[in-house]
Order: sequence, then structure tokens, then C-alpha cells
Amino acid sequence: MSKNGEHYATLEVEGESSGTRDTKGKTPIMEAPLIGKGGAHEKSMDDAGGAGVKRGVGVIDFVVRLLALVAALAATIIMGTTDQTLPFFTQFFQFRARYYDLPTFTYFVVANAVTAAYLVLSLPFSIVTIVRPLAKAPRLILIIFDTMALTLVTSAGASAAAIVYLAHKGNTNTNWVAICQQFDSFCSRSSGAVVGSFIAAVLFVLLIILSTVALKSH
Amino acid sequence: MSKNGEHYATLEVEGESSGTRDTKGKTPIMEAPLIGKGGAHEKSMDDAGGAGVKRGVGVIDFVVRLLALVAALAATIIMGTTDQTLPFFTQFFQFRARYYDLPTFTYFVVANAVTAAYLVLSLPFSIVTIVRPLAKAPRLILIIFDTMALTLVTSAGASAAAIVYLAHKGNTNTNWVAICQQFDSFCSRSSGAVVGSFIAAVLFVLLIILSTVALKSH
Repeated sequence: MSKNGEHYATLEVEGESSGTRDTKGKTPIMEAPLIGKGGAHEKSMDDAGGAGVKRGVGVIDFVVRLLALVAALAATIIMGTTDQTLPFFTQFFQFRARYYDLPTFTYFVVANAVTAAYLVLSLPFSIVTIVRPLAKAPRLILIIFDTMALTLVTSAGASAAAIVYLAHKGNTNTNWVAICQQFDSFCSRSSGAVVGSFIAAVLFVLLIILSTVALKSH
Repeated sequence: MSKNGEHYATLEVEGESSGTRDTKGKTPIMEAPLIGKGGAHEKSMDDAGGAGVKRGVGVIDFVVRLLALVAALAATIIMGTTDQTLPFFTQFFQFRARYYDLPTFTYFVVANAVTAAYLVLSLPFSIVTIVRPLAKAPRLILIIFDTMALTLVTSAGASAAAIVYLAHKGNTNTNWVAICQQFDSFCSRSSGAVVGSFIAAVLFVLLIILSTVALKSH
């Protein structure tokens, strides 16, 4: 009897301290013989709670994904439709700036378009994480491809930023002159596109962290 | 007496594992009254197998991390020590190219140095995943910071690549001339540094995927 008393004392100590999972695990162990079903019931309640949180993470994932899609699409369209023709011209040609005059900007448009397409394709997987919040596979797939898309959109944004910076400031050491005095609209539009691309990159980092935290708590 | 037997079975279950708390908690709930010991035995087999695989993943993580460190450090040093002075000079100055003549290359050196420093700091966490393969927290921390480091090193590599490309090819539309005819050594060294940076980026993608897969199989 005194032994039993000790046992229950231990129980209480264990039950009240440490993380929630510990409590969940240990309490039913002690009580199993008498209220095994109760323990099972508790567990399913816990699962339901975890599923609720994960469903919430899934919903946030979906919304952030939509925002990233808007950012990548805006970057593509802004850069892709930039076309400035200067009001003066020589005998041989007119001064005109479009994205495909600079190979880096062409890469930017293609990479952002690919990222936007990937984001559209990833939406169903995001929906699966909402509908089946306890499934691990969709989250794993999303993290892997999000990481690749992050690399793509970051490289596009950074390389275009390097060129935009050069267009604004020029570089005296290499004798590259700034062109933004003339092509002001071209420059401001491409700067805006670069910002859009960086917003998409930041949202991707957020998506990866969200999915990883959700995966960890499985 | 039967109660005591049960009690000890439970005790063993509690004693043996630390990482797989869910399993630990749930198995005894279902099996404790009849086959508490059998269940515990099976589980310990599973744990040992899982821990072995995860320890292997931890070792690979550590090696890949060292390779990424070498790549980022090489990129930093190659770009940082590039210094080409042309054999001809004018009355006023001598033609000389160093990384800080181009702001993008300065960013490249700083970003790669920061990445290398982060990789050194991350090595202890990688060792923790080897020593305690079932712990989730170190992997989560590594994934989050690896993702940020990936963004940093990718942006450095991509922006420097855009400038290196321009230095090689020039651009007639913007009247930026290629400088690699003169600064051939400067150009080939900075190209090498960019490649090192991209290798580091690819290794980071690999690290993130590895850690995520290990985290998923918990």
C-alpha cells in the first residue's frame, strides 16, 4: 500500500512537470490498466488538437503561397513589359530599352515565370496539407521544391539587382556609365521588378520554415 | 503482483528512449496490459534501426557541411585576393583591378565570408545530430539557418555572375564594354570564385533536403 502511494506520488510529479507531450505519454501509462480506453480517448483528442494546429499552418502556407505567386507574377510582368523608347534618335537607330537587351533581365523574366508556374502547381499540394494535416509526404515534397524555387528566384533577383545597381550608379573603374539618366522609366520599372522578386524570395523562406516546423511537430 | 509486473514493464519502456516520445507514450497504452514487454522490445529494435540511419544522415550532413565550408572559403579567398595590375599606365594612374573596385564583388566577398563563418558555427549542431540522432531540435535549427545561408550565398553568387558575364561579354545596348580582354587574370579568378559560391549553394540545397528527410522519418 505504501508502495502504491509512492507510485501515485511519482505520477503526479511527472504529470505536472515537463512538456505537454511528456504528460500525454506518461500519464496514460500509469493509468492504463484501469482506464486504458480513457487514455486512448485522450490521445485521439490530442491528435485532433495537433491536426487543428497543422491545418492552420496549412492555411497560412496556402495564403503565403498565393502572395508569393502574386509577387513572382508581378515581377515577371513588370520586367517583361518594360519598353522605353527615347524621344530622340540618330540616323541609324532609335534608342530603346527592353528586357531582352540585357541577358540578365531575360534570365530574370524566365526565372520568375518558372517560379510563378511552380507556385501554381504547388497549390494543390498545399491544399492537401489542409485537408490531410497529418500527412508528412506533401510537406516534404513542398519543402524540397520550395528550396529549389527559392534558389531560382533569389538568383534571378540578385543578378538583376546587380545590373540595376550598375545602371543607376555606373562604375568608373570599368568605365561602365550609368544609363538611368536617359532610361529613367526603364530603370524604375526594373527596380520594382527586382523588389517583387525579393519579396517572393522572403516568402519562400517563410514557407520553408513553416513547413519544417509543422513537419517537426509530427 | 500483476500490477507490479506491469509497472516494471512500463519503467523499461520509459528508460530506453528519449526522442520518439509519441511512440513511447502510445505503445504502452495499447499493449501494456498483455504484451508490455514484447511491445517494448519491438520498439527498441525500431529505434535502434532509425537511430542508426539518422546517425548516418548526420555524418553525411557533417561531411557535406565541411565541403560547403571549403567552397565558400575558397570563393572568399579567391575573390578577396584577386589583384591584377596592367603592365601599361598613363600619366595619372595605373590600371589595376581588385574586388572592391566593383561593389557587387565586395558584397560577394562579405557574403561568402559570412556563409563560411556560419558553416563553422553550425558544425557543433551537426555533431549533435550524430551524437543524439533522435533529437529533432538541432535539425530544425539547422534547416532554418541553412535556408537563410542558402539565400545569402545564392544572391552573392548570382549577382557576381551577372557582373562577370558583363565583364566577359560587355553589352552593346548599354555601351558597357567587356574588360576581360585586358583584365584576363582578374576575370578568370572572379569566375572561379563564382563557381565556388554556386557549389556552396548546391551543397546547401543538399543539406536542407537531407535534414528534412531525416526530420520527416522521425
